[in-house]
Amino acid sequence: MNGYVQDVIMLLGDSLTQGASDAGGFAQKLSYAYNRKLDVVNRGLSGYNTKWAIPVFTQCLARRTGTHADGLFPKVQLLTLWFGANDACLEHSPQHVPLADFAENLDTLVRAVRAPGSAHYAPWTRVVLLTPPPVNTRQRGADLAARDPPRACDRDFEVTRQYAQAVREVGARHRLPVVDVWTMLWEGCGKEEAKLDKYLSDGLHTNAEAHALIYDGLMKVIAERWPEFSPERLPMVFPPWDQVITNPSLEKRVLFKEASLRD
Amino acid sequence: MNGYVQDVIMLLGDSLTQGASDAGGFAQKLSYAYNRKLDVVNRGLSGYNTKWAIPVFTQCLARRTGTHADGLFPKVQLLTLWFGANDACLEHSPQHVPLADFAENLDTLVRAVRAPGSAHYAPWTRVVLLTPPPVNTRQRGADLAARDPPRACDRDFEVTRQYAQAVREVGARHRLPVVDVWTMLWEGCGKEEAKLDKYLSDGLHTNAEAHALIYDGLMKVIAERWPEFSPERLPMVFPPWDQVITNPSLEKRVLFKEASLRD
Repeated sequence: MNGYVQDVIMLLGDSLTQGASDAGGFAQKLSYAYNRKLDVVNRGLSGYNTKWAIPVFTQCLARRTGTHADGLFPKVQLLTLWFGANDACLEHSPQHVPLADFAENLDTLVRAVRAPGSAHYAPWTRVVLLTPPPVNTRQRGADLAARDPPRACDRDFEVTRQYAQAVREVGARHRLPVVDVWTMLWEGCGKEEAKLDKYLSDGLHTNAEAHALIYDGLMKVIAERWPEFSPERLPMVFPPWDQVITNPSLEKRVLFKEASLRD
Repeated sequence: MNGYVQDVIMLLGDSLTQGASDAGGFAQKLSYAYNRKLDVVNRGLSGYNTKWAIPVFTQCLARRTGTHADGLFPKVQLLTLWFGANDACLEHSPQHVPLADFAENLDTLVRAVRAPGSAHYAPWTRVVLLTPPPVNTRQRGADLAARDPPRACDRDFEVTRQYAQAVREVGARHRLPVVDVWTMLWEGCGKEEAKLDKYLSDGLHTNAEAHALIYDGLMKVIAERWPEFSPERLPMVFPPWDQVITNPSLEKRVLFKEASLRD
């Protein structure tokens, strides 16, 4: 059975997060950067909106018992919440979540770990919100029109922009850092919808170039807000091999485990 | 706290495994392929040999208690053991482990999960061994000679070949599948040491091209030996979104969780 060795970074979101385990995705980059320090847990669920994510999220978290059993579970040291791309589907879509409900759902996800009364309250969890990327409706529309049977475009540039704004507002209300993917990609393509194909493979999903920006944005948040949490500042759980050879006691007894993250 | 949602694939090894979280590495590819099905836990420790890995491994596994507490820990459904590259260091190196000790240590790692008397016995764990890659001593020697101060080459082609053979023998003894990295890379470069730079970045560490072969080799083992464990055969833990919308009861109550992997 997999024992508790490292705390975790949990990534909760939709297909944009799920796909972030691909080469060059921000989940992959985090895994590499935090190797031997934190495990990266991808809880991205393609197609999901915030309404469906709430019951999933509560299952992904261990409930606090207030007993020593709590110590059996890795702490979520960093949590990214990246939603909006599906909630912003137009009203005819079953994925659509009204804007006000989206903001409330996102608020519920945040309070799951930040409200002291929550069964999942985790004061140590660093929460970062991400805004949905802007939609390239030409690309997305062409993609859906080419399907069998053809489908009408299910997103709208302006609507998704409003959902991105809602994320910023939830962030401001909770004083949480926001990686503003919407603005980064919009500005990065010169504010021309047709040029969003620089970052979006199909008008909706972020490619490796976008993920590089997203990862850098997240690293910037960490460096500014929680510098002690930067990958280069965290100790390895098991010591580097050159420490093992210069410290025979490490070699003889069961190897030292850095406990600082647990406390 | 991170709750038990998915079982895991654990990768135990040295820097070759640690580096497999990089883009194109076999850890990254597994994470992507098993998204929403299994978490990939990279327990690669740069520089480590089997002697140092044994105490680490026992800490990475939860001890069996025979009580319901065992159900709190994710099962290790697949375990890769990839050692030999450091054990095969020449005798003057502190990383050197004699060949017979290497085989015995690898045997100890296997028995940790497969011996019924072990505190970590896990009859469900699929164990796969990997052989160390062949060494390009020209590349490795040039790399070490260029350091300050210059160092003599610490590996030998023929010695590492013997350690690869020892892995095959441990695999045969336990009837475990072996992904024979040594042979794949050796044959892939036309059996010319100088041409190993096709797969090795510095004479020792595998590049993305090698990792593609390693991943394919692992997938072949899974398809042949445990076809039910192929990524496309395993159910998602949380249902696909189009199942959520066609089954209103899924949406209303806490979402269904696929329990088959737990039983």
